[in-house]
Amino acid sequence: MSTPKVAVIMGSDSDFEIVKKCLIALEKFGIEYDVQVISAHRNPHKIFDYATTAEDRGIEVFIAAAGKAAHLPGVIAGITPLPVIGIPIQTSFQGGLDSLLSIVQMPSGVPVATVAVNGAENAGILAAQMLSIKYPEIREKMKAFKIQLNDEVIAKNEKVQEIL
Amino acid sequence: MSTPKVAVIMGSDSDFEIVKKCLIALEKFGIEYDVQVISAHRNPHKIFDYATTAEDRGIEVFIAAAGKAAHLPGVIAGITPLPVIGIPIQTSFQGGLDSLLSIVQMPSGVPVATVAVNGAENAGILAAQMLSIKYPEIREKMKAFKIQLNDEVIAKNEKVQEIL
Amino acid sequence: MSTPKVAVIMGSDSDFEIVKKCLIALEKFGIEYDVQVISAHRNPHKIFDYATTAEDRGIEVFIAAAGKAAHLPGVIAGITPLPVIGIPIQTSFQGGLDSLLSIVQMPSGVPVATVAVNGAENAGILAAQMLSIKYPEIREKMKAFKIQLNDEVIAKNEKVQEIL
Amino acid sequence: MSTPKVAVIMGSDSDFEIVKKCLIALEKFGIEYDVQVISAHRNPHKIFDYATTAEDRGIEVFIAAAGKAAHLPGVIAGITPLPVIGIPIQTSFQGGLDSLLSIVQMPSGVPVATVAVNGAENAGILAAQMLSIKYPEIREKMKAFKIQLNDEVIAKNEKVQEIL
Amino acid sequence: MSTPKVAVIMGSDSDFEIVKKCLIALEKFGIEYDVQVISAHRNPHKIFDYATTAEDRGIEVFIAAAGKAAHLPGVIAGITPLPVIGIPIQTSFQGGLDSLLSIVQMPSGVPVATVAVNGAENAGILAAQMLSIKYPEIREKMKAFKIQLNDEVIAKNEKVQEIL
Amino acid sequence: MSTPKVAVIMGSDSDFEIVKKCLIALEKFGIEYDVQVISAHRNPHKIFDYATTAEDRGIEVFIAAAGKAAHLPGVIAGITPLPVIGIPIQTSFQGGLDSLLSIVQMPSGVPVATVAVNGAENAGILAAQMLSIKYPEIREKMKAFKIQLNDEVIAKNEKVQEIL
Amino acid sequence: MSTPKVAVIMGSDSDFEIVKKCLIALEKFGIEYDVQVISAHRNPHKIFDYATTAEDRGIEVFIAAAGKAAHLPGVIAGITPLPVIGIPIQTSFQGGLDSLLSIVQMPSGVPVATVAVNGAENAGILAAQMLSIKYPEIREKMKAFKIQLNDEVIAKNEKVQEIL
Amino acid sequence: MSTPKVAVIMGSDSDFEIVKKCLIALEKFGIEYDVQVISAHRNPHKIFDYATTAEDRGIEVFIAAAGKAAHLPGVIAGITPLPVIGIPIQTSFQGGLDSLLSIVQMPSGVPVATVAVNGAENAGILAAQMLSIKYPEIREKMKAFKIQLNDEVIAKNEKVQEIL
Repeated sequence: MSTPKVAVIMGSDSDFEIVKKCLIALEKFGIEYDVQVISAHRNPHKIFDYATTAEDRGIEVFIAAAGKAAHLPGVIAGITPLPVIGIPIQTSFQGGLDSLLSIVQMPSGVPVATVAVNGAENAGILAAQMLSIKYPEIREKMKAFKIQLNDEVIAKNEKVQEIL
Repeated sequence: MSTPKVAVIMGSDSDFEIVKKCLIALEKFGIEYDVQVISAHRNPHKIFDYATTAEDRGIEVFIAAAGKAAHLPGVIAGITPLPVIGIPIQTSFQGGLDSLLSIVQMPSGVPVATVAVNGAENAGILAAQMLSIKYPEIREKMKAFKIQLNDEVIAKNEKVQEIL
Repeated sequence: MSTPKVAVIMGSDSDFEIVKKCLIALEKFGIEYDVQVISAHRNPHKIFDYATTAEDRGIEVFIAAAGKAAHLPGVIAGITPLPVIGIPIQTSFQGGLDSLLSIVQMPSGVPVATVAVNGAENAGILAAQMLSIKYPEIREKMKAFKIQLNDEVIAKNEKVQEIL
Repeated sequence: MSTPKVAVIMGSDSDFEIVKKCLIALEKFGIEYDVQVISAHRNPHKIFDYATTAEDRGIEVFIAAAGKAAHLPGVIAGITPLPVIGIPIQTSFQGGLDSLLSIVQMPSGVPVATVAVNGAENAGILAAQMLSIKYPEIREKMKAFKIQLNDEVIAKNEKVQEIL
Repeated sequence: MSTPKVAVIMGSDSDFEIVKKCLIALEKFGIEYDVQVISAHRNPHKIFDYATTAEDRGIEVFIAAAGKAAHLPGVIAGITPLPVIGIPIQTSFQGGLDSLLSIVQMPSGVPVATVAVNGAENAGILAAQMLSIKYPEIREKMKAFKIQLNDEVIAKNEKVQEIL
Repeated sequence: MSTPKVAVIMGSDSDFEIVKKCLIALEKFGIEYDVQVISAHRNPHKIFDYATTAEDRGIEVFIAAAGKAAHLPGVIAGITPLPVIGIPIQTSFQGGLDSLLSIVQMPSGVPVATVAVNGAENAGILAAQMLSIKYPEIREKMKAFKIQLNDEVIAKNEKVQEIL
Repeated sequence: MSTPKVAVIMGSDSDFEIVKKCLIALEKFGIEYDVQVISAHRNPHKIFDYATTAEDRGIEVFIAAAGKAAHLPGVIAGITPLPVIGIPIQTSFQGGLDSLLSIVQMPSGVPVATVAVNGAENAGILAAQMLSIKYPEIREKMKAFKIQLNDEVIAKNEKVQEIL
Repeated sequence: MSTPKVAVIMGSDSDFEIVKKCLIALEKFGIEYDVQVISAHRNPHKIFDYATTAEDRGIEVFIAAAGKAAHLPGVIAGITPLPVIGIPIQTSFQGGLDSLLSIVQMPSGVPVATVAVNGAENAGILAAQMLSIKYPEIREKMKAFKIQLNDEVIAKNEKVQEIL
């Protein structure tokens, strides 16, 4: 079976600090990724070409991060049949409400799977959950990850008990 | 290969009119579903049991619709390793901003793939896109669906041209 | 001198009732238009082609109307060097805040000249103002229009004085 | 008569700085508390168990603090018959509107007594007011507390008069 | 042991349709109530007197409903040592955001236990939960009520299963 | 003719930095003032007494500053027949939307003359405008002030011209 | 002593239904008014002339009602030294948030005394309160009005007591 | 053919840091400008005169920047037949929602071409696009600019590829 592969696109290199958390999450689940800075508005040809050919290059899920009038995830979703995850980047306008609404409020027929504002880690985890439908080893890692999440909070609780 | 299967949970039977569009979309892609009315707050045991055992019953994707303090998708996502799609139901409070934020703003580690307010059809399509990672026949249907979307708007455009 | 020409694009034929006010305004200023229903998300090839070739077909200004995650004006603005006017269509979500932010909050380099929610008439007037830079006869009509606006309110005021 | 006891649950140890003000308030009224870090989404079993057994362990009131898609207070309220007070933690999204709406907009049948964003001190005072229904000595302390509040502002007013 | 008693105050008689659901909930738990229409702004003396003397008349919990600049619950909470529950009444301004913020965002020292916009039934249930700290028979009714809530949704689910 | 006099009330001494700009404005117009820190919620008796007796002590206008659930101006307006100006203090919640709505959205019969968030200087100027109805010398100062405002911006414009 | 006189300006005759409540309030206090439909944007000369000459024609207070980008009250306030009361007209955009912010958020130096969205009656009462600084007979009417407000709610309360 | 000329007006010299980006953009396209600090509220005569005479002085497009109750662009648009571009300046109130709504929500008949909050660079580019209708050399520069935008992002993408 081939290695699962995710395309991670950001609209601006200034989003890279946030997007990194997504890459770390993908690595945790053993998922390959292709990272690209492609602006929906400044590289219209390139995003069109990239999204059109992604499936043939083995991409199985898209993750796209963008801010303000954040059209990138929706533009990709209009082109590709693959699932597209959108990460709204926080802005100085109402904490990123512009990014969130531009990504989540997609019209019928063309969904974008939206995560929280700046929710890059969750975008990676969500991609892993999607891929786990096909790849049993990712499902196993996801179960282990949920146990780890549980354990981490329990450990933090113990620390809080100590300082009380 | 087994038939793909989606669990569609709504927090209240009053959400059924909206959720129906999701079922129609799933049928279009030949996807089986199990529909349940389970409230996160009124049936806490039941939602816990259902989400815990879903994978063993062959469920591959969750779709959950809820309004106001819409905890249902997040509660399910806390329990299951499967991907969870959340449909924020429109309310009289700022057009459903309460539902949207309660579903999309999930903390790190536990994503919910959020679609637009009342975006039930898109939830079904997104589930199909997720399942198309594993099931090639759904991928083919998705490509045909995108061509159909394109054709429908072109037909509508022709009608507008006539009335001008 | 050639006839000025505006492309009026709407994302959905359901926007036609609103967009009509724009066409009436353009006619008032003697401006030709090409009306098209093209969805940024459902007709990605078509919008790409249309926007790329518009200048060669004599289009001088774009007007694009869209609602919810309203990417249409921004997608056009990413392709064409022509000025693009965006009309946010009212929605049930906070009166169209989603449409407004998706259109107005464009990143640096790619502006969209945004008018009020449902401001289709004003989009037509704004296109006329842009064209009046080149076409003196539109400037004259604009001055006459402003006198007419003034007179209409004065007439309405007289009616109010009568009923007091 | 037994000692009154409150369970104070926070969804993340990062909320502890805010929650401390609640503990100080409870101590002021002579109320015992059990503080726990339990995430509704990362520790679903534990929160279920804790909330189910709380009454038997002598807990009389719940206080739960959470941020973003803040499901913790609502999840507890779905399980326990005890009154649940919710503290929305401030976030970078519209000052915590996400936390506030996720906590206060509960569906019929399952209330959460919501205080202001970051209103941890008030959560403690509100718990004391609830307990004062049963415990007369807390009612007396509450009356003294209100006199003290009044006196403090009067003292501050005197200082302002001096610097004018 | 005395009969538990709640004061239910509404700022305007136009709120009565909403407030009725609160009275029905209180009756379900066998709780007496005193209903009053008293405006914080139009009856300042009366609300002052009523809140000052309520405890002596056997009132154990306050419920106050108000809309727009909804000061009534906060004004009462400034006077009485009793717990005060606030019901934000829906308005035409952002679905009642004005009412909600005017009630929930109380300053430190003076909490109001806020329920959802128009959440009158939940206000009654919350009052019952507060009183159940002292009155064991209300606790028993609350447990029965939660079972009934659970059963009702299960019944609704069965109906949905039938029509599928 | 007596000296005009304004009561300036703030809900918390933490508002003093903002309120100072109001005092400076009042002094500019030769208006006396009585500054008080009185909380609507912590000093309910005192605010009641102060507002009831203000007219007899020669107060002609009220200015009240408050934040969050900012009831102070409305509570005063419920008691006194004098005009009441409200200053919404900026908060960390949506830039003070809570304060603004709690002050401006007063019910019919009891207006509060609301200025911008943190608009303390404008509150002082508005008080002067109200008093200028009776006091011609304040009207003259107001006209001079408007000339001064005009001149200041012209001077600033000249500086900008120099640096271009 | 001369008759007090208020200028009531509305930006559009469509605001007349709302503005009528203001006229009724002014009449209740024996205040003369001059009603005008003048648009800040369509009649820029006229509003300039009207505001410049108002004081000489005996106007003592301005009331201006406007919706959407509601510049009318602020434009008047920039010209006249008289106090200006602004009425934000409700719109389909977030219940009139656009009107409210365009009126209340005035820059330093130029206040507008803003009332609630659609608060036309309160605008009339506020004008009366301002004029009562100079006219003792209006102060007396204001005191009687406050007693009447109190009595009306008491009467409504009695009716509610009867139907319980 | 004459040199194209734009009037750039800001309501306050504090907006100059933002407005500078607009001037740099205009220079990039070889467009002359006249920069002025003129407040709509503090210099009502001056803005009236400036806008009335601008066309005769060779101005072809207006750009106006303002914050809070940002009336400047709308006031200019009410006077001049020229196209007016509005720049909403960011404020501490919801990231500049007040500025945005005060500029974009113009009534029918008087449009303002609104760009993003703090979108000064885009205002300059939009002015260039408008002028490119008449001036072919600006159109050529605009096409080159779009190629440059595309190349810049591609270069940034290459840098990101290197650090991965």
